Amino acid sequence: MQYHVNGELVSAEDATVSVEDRGFKYGDAAFETLRAYGGDPFEWQAHRDRLQRTAETLGFGDAVPDDLRERVGETLAENDLSEAYVRLSVTRGVQPGKLTPAGDVSPSVVVIVKELPRGGTEGESVWDGPADVQTVKTRRIPSEALPADAKTHNYLNGILARIELRRAATEEYRAEECLMRDAAGNVVEGATSNLFLVTEAGLKTPSEDLDLLPGVTRSVVIDLAREEEFPVETGEYSVSDVRDADEAFLTNSTWEIRPIGRVDGIDVGTGPMTKLLQRLFDERVENEHY
Amino acid sequence: MQYHVNGELVSAEDATVSVEDRGFKYGDAAFETLRAYGGDPFEWQAHRDRLQRTAETLGFGDAVPDDLRERVGETLAENDLSEAYVRLSVTRGVQPGKLTPAGDVSPSVVVIVKELPRGGTEGESVWDGPADVQTVKTRRIPSEALPADAKTHNYLNGILARIELRRAATEEYRAEECLMRDAAGNVVEGATSNLFLVTEAGLKTPSEDLDLLPGVTRSVVIDLAREEEFPVETGEYSVSDVRDADEAFLTNSTWEIRPIGRVDGIDVGTGPMTKLLQRLFDERVENEHY
Repeated sequence: MQYHVNGELVSAEDATVSVEDRGFKYGDAAFETLRAYGGDPFEWQAHRDRLQRTAETLGFGDAVPDDLRERVGETLAENDLSEAYVRLSVTRGVQPGKLTPAGDVSPSVVVIVKELPRGGTEGESVWDGPADVQTVKTRRIPSEALPADAKTHNYLNGILARIELRRAATEEYRAEECLMRDAAGNVVEGATSNLFLVTEAGLKTPSEDLDLLPGVTRSVVIDLAREEEFPVETGEYSVSDVRDADEAFLTNSTWEIRPIGRVDGIDVGTGPMTKLLQRLFDERVENEHY
Repeated sequence: MQYHVNGELVSAEDATVSVEDRGFKYGDAAFETLRAYGGDPFEWQAHRDRLQRTAETLGFGDAVPDDLRERVGETLAENDLSEAYVRLSVTRGVQPGKLTPAGDVSPSVVVIVKELPRGGTEGESVWDGPADVQTVKTRRIPSEALPADAKTHNYLNGILARIELRRAATEEYRAEECLMRDAAGNVVEGATSNLFLVTEAGLKTPSEDLDLLPGVTRSVVIDLAREEEFPVETGEYSVSDVRDADEAFLTNSTWEIRPIGRVDGIDVGTGPMTKLLQRLFDERVENEHY
């Protein structure tokens, strides 16, 4: 496998950053994960825009290279991949001094790819079945401490939440994703996914005003629902609201739309609305990429 | 300069980690910064213990190598350094899969050193004078989201606080350290330092029950004060308490004990207690290391 590091294609074994890179020392970096379908990044502009916003939040907006899409394209082509997972990182690079960043940024820019066959209307999903989820004690970091809408290399909050799942796992119940709450107790998202509920009143998803990372897939799903004139409400929901939903599902670039099986051991499951949205999503991918 | 990476001494230019190392991708790593005086790490056991605790919090306590002190010693010797800044990192390494960590850890272990002449009873401090500090909007991450007593590669919270200082700087006032508050408004610490106040009632420092990283130097200062039978109180303090203190100072491994000049532009300054503690600290270093 070949990766793209600072403008060059290098073998995966040689794809490294300095131990003095701030992306390594402090997680001082912006990143995106996305999928390529038919050789082309899905929702490129949305991912590019979010990467730019994250870099601006961190104070190095100018460091995001203009030719990022070309670098992704070169990396896919070099590896002969059309269906792929792509991870992009832009770090603040190596700087003199310690924690306080210098204004002058020589970023590290990294593109990693992996083969990831698509699901789609005819194919298989990357997941085996609905995800069981579990409420965890670890709370989402409030935006007053670290803006939730910035996607950075500071990901320990989600890692600690996932470790809770592993520690709590039994033979009967092994949750794959967590339900994370904010300090006030509102359910906000999973460690790497956004949450949707289906109720009689329509589709519901935690509001962007809460401490969550509004995913690109979340936004596509909201668009698809609105195009079909299904009501979509964004607001504040509790764990009980999730348990009581008629259907519930998770979204992210890799899973696309993945039904929730059980919440803290209680069946929620999939249903016609989830299936319809999956179908609409697959059609959108099909129409745009093949 | 030679650094120590995964058991080998390598030149600084060749000191790298994989772009797939979780320490890079997610800041999934424990670290320590410390000083060597006379070729020997200061308060080695305290730093070693905290590194171990951080690794245990992150679920990879077994990954911290037994011979870490030897690796530090080899790195100092190879570079002919006796007075030095040392940074140690232990990461969760490269693992298959994505965010959820695997149990099997092949860590990356990195030792970085820089020359750092000591101050001491005869020498010069690494800082030029008292630090001006400024209250920032960025709040400390609550421990329910990320345990404050774990020292990890997730350091953006402090970086954003430092960026606030840079953005607020004027010709008249250019603060070097921030006063960070928790969600409730208690002053907890700086981005990379602990805070002490001197009042008529004695020495005061924010309690370890708050969301702060209890520094090794903080602990040494508390010991020194208690040995002299100066009262030391740990509790909850506001920004006004800092402004109203007779003296105030910051502690960390690099600065040791650094007086605060102004708080949000208001003079606080140094005084006899700060000077006495600096003297006691220098004597302790002198007695233990030379």
